[in-house]
Amino acid sequence: MGGSRLDPWVDSYASRAKAMRASEIRALFAVASRPEVVSLAGGMPYVQALPVEMMADTARRVLYERGSQALQYGSGQGDVTLREQILDVIGEVGVIAHPDDIVVTTGSQMALDLVTRVFCDPGDVVLVEAPSYVGALGVFRAYECDVIHVAMDAEGLVPSALSDAITATRAVGKKVKLIYTIPSFHNPAGVTQGPARRAEILAIAQSAGIAILEDDPYGLLGFEGEPPRAIRADDSDGVIYLGSFSKTIASGLRVGWAVAPHGVREKLVLANESAVLCPSNYTQLTISEYLATQPWREQIKTFQEVYRERRDALLESLQAMMPEGTTWTIPAGGFYSWLTLPHGLDATAMLPRAVANLVAYVPGTGFYVDGQGRQNMRLSYCYPEPDRIREGVRRLAAVIESELEVVQTFGTTHAPPDYTGSSVPSPHLE
Amino acid sequence: MGGSRLDPWVDSYASRAKAMRASEIRALFAVASRPEVVSLAGGMPYVQALPVEMMADTARRVLYERGSQALQYGSGQGDVTLREQILDVIGEVGVIAHPDDIVVTTGSQMALDLVTRVFCDPGDVVLVEAPSYVGALGVFRAYECDVIHVAMDAEGLVPSALSDAITATRAVGKKVKLIYTIPSFHNPAGVTQGPARRAEILAIAQSAGIAILEDDPYGLLGFEGEPPRAIRADDSDGVIYLGSFSKTIASGLRVGWAVAPHGVREKLVLANESAVLCPSNYTQLTISEYLATQPWREQIKTFQEVYRERRDALLESLQAMMPEGTTWTIPAGGFYSWLTLPHGLDATAMLPRAVANLVAYVPGTGFYVDGQGRQNMRLSYCYPEPDRIREGVRRLAAVIESELEVVQTFGTTHAPPDYTGSSVPSPHLE
Repeated sequence: MGGSRLDPWVDSYASRAKAMRASEIRALFAVASRPEVVSLAGGMPYVQALPVEMMADTARRVLYERGSQALQYGSGQGDVTLREQILDVIGEVGVIAHPDDIVVTTGSQMALDLVTRVFCDPGDVVLVEAPSYVGALGVFRAYECDVIHVAMDAEGLVPSALSDAITATRAVGKKVKLIYTIPSFHNPAGVTQGPARRAEILAIAQSAGIAILEDDPYGLLGFEGEPPRAIRADDSDGVIYLGSFSKTIASGLRVGWAVAPHGVREKLVLANESAVLCPSNYTQLTISEYLATQPWREQIKTFQEVYRERRDALLESLQAMMPEGTTWTIPAGGFYSWLTLPHGLDATAMLPRAVANLVAYVPGTGFYVDGQGRQNMRLSYCYPEPDRIREGVRRLAAVIESELEVVQTFGTTHAPPDYTGSSVPSPHLE
Repeated sequence: MGGSRLDPWVDSYASRAKAMRASEIRALFAVASRPEVVSLAGGMPYVQALPVEMMADTARRVLYERGSQALQYGSGQGDVTLREQILDVIGEVGVIAHPDDIVVTTGSQMALDLVTRVFCDPGDVVLVEAPSYVGALGVFRAYECDVIHVAMDAEGLVPSALSDAITATRAVGKKVKLIYTIPSFHNPAGVTQGPARRAEILAIAQSAGIAILEDDPYGLLGFEGEPPRAIRADDSDGVIYLGSFSKTIASGLRVGWAVAPHGVREKLVLANESAVLCPSNYTQLTISEYLATQPWREQIKTFQEVYRERRDALLESLQAMMPEGTTWTIPAGGFYSWLTLPHGLDATAMLPRAVANLVAYVPGTGFYVDGQGRQNMRLSYCYPEPDRIREGVRRLAAVIESELEVVQTFGTTHAPPDYTGSSVPSPHLE
């Protein structure tokens, strides 16, 4: 988009606005949203699994019974009843808190924005996983942070790499303000930190005096056993925990929250008021009424089953169809698997050919700020039906086979176009 | 709040967070929200004038018929159907635009935040009216702008003062990034720019090459004749226009919008995605369904009548009861009148005594960044019933009389406590 018309304000923008540019990849995703394309790209929850008539009746009841509250401005910290109910939700991952510790936000994306706003001056360092959530990278860049990736393995963020990154950053005189991590069912990596790993990471952060920003949108969407215990469950002073109803109820309501230490929470409320005055009472009361009257834990089980079936469809068809040399992570929950292509292949360069073959994914480069990830892609199994997933993998396997033939014949694929990582999130990449 | 507990993160915050502090005045407003206090402080719309059962049925229909869209992530720019409908709303103030020119935001407060984010580096100058909207001042300060007040008269922003401010600012080597104005039914001043005044202001901005940020939440809530023609109606390249459904439908939905020139709009969409991914589909579709199926122009007339009756109650009782030397503005629409106390009185110092006498207002200092406004207060007539307004003015007049007696006896009132202007907005001050 754009570019053709001259912008008379181009010299008036803030420095941070220079980092705001539409990803080249967006035009492709416009094509990829056509119904004939199997999209393994989007992170959209399967809201069709919700009983929509019940949601409709819930919304109606809220307005009938508490319309003058639902339609009015509310508290900058969020509705107090909802904050009490959120305690039950975070109790599932072992977090014990007080309603005063919680700030309700316009989706947890807004919480990411507000935490960064409170902590980060331009040039401050945020340590993030390699790869990391595209929407968080967009926020950190919007606040002109220095984003530094830290290696992951099959159990997520690698503690020794974290220690090394802190040491190296401090050695060059930079301040590390936040360690941003998604410990459970990582987006995009599809891996989960075990309890010992979490303890190691927490100990490193505590010893360095750096706050952990724990992002946990998928924590209740595991496929076996109990939900992983949050890092925040073991440190209420050193961890800012972000949660969301986007994946356990519905993303269209835009209700998330932060659980934060006292002083941070005060700043977050003020920042929230500056940004939006208050989160929507209407959406908050709808969520609150849903939690009070509906079997929400049962609904989460329904979501778990939906996503497990789709995860299985993805993994089985990857196993059956992918050419040798292709590897992928085995997610125990959440929405994503992270695939690594055979040596010599480039997921960014391959995307137009995949879309031409009616399958879409997100190239790995979108999840890094530094150009890594060309050999990777994120595959989402959250939205398409299992049969569509199998069909998508079949198409994708064919594209990869054909790329491999090119490599084997000519020693290289076509020169990759210059798709830089998306500088901002998009719901379709979320 | 706070202060007693030690904050371990106090040295980790961003520079901008230092400006984020709770106003001392908030504790008083907690008291002022008791039912026995007549609050002339709040800017809450009288949502009780909405047909709530109809709203409830609208919400239910949206989820029944378009649940899988309403509950899902949407576009970062906002729902396209709603953007088309917004064209009808802004057509009422003479603005002609294309749906592509519009960005839907989480209330127009978020639009203020995003515009500032796109334009302003720390130290950049924003020119604002004297006084100005507390929520805008909070945003400009959160982005570490230099806020400079420009004089107003009974017709709003004074053109010669605006020219002088631009010249003076540039003379010291500073960049003026935005001229922020509320031309219609000003918050808090209660005045309105006439057509000639608007033309003069626009010409000055155009000639200086500075963007106007036109904030118009009350434009359709005039009490006589046609709504004032927006400045944006006469310049689509130089004006960013902000609108809101908070006062014409309901504030609890948090749906506002910006109309912006092409290049600015692109940046705003990216900033919106970074901040919240997308505005809530659920609230947007509820507004859209309401606009499509309900007589919204008639409902605005109902609001106009409600607020005119209250404005009249306020003005009549001020006229009948206020001691000599007290003056106030005559609003032709909107929610507010701006009162000036007799010489020697201090509205900030007087507030605790007013609250003790069961009436509340917002002291003028909250609407300035520089300590002006001690002799002023904002009186809101939007929320209390007319009889309550009369009772509130009676109580307020008694407090002022009693302060005058002190001044006449001792030559001064008590030393004023140090209530600095609220650094952030609050729904109760909005």
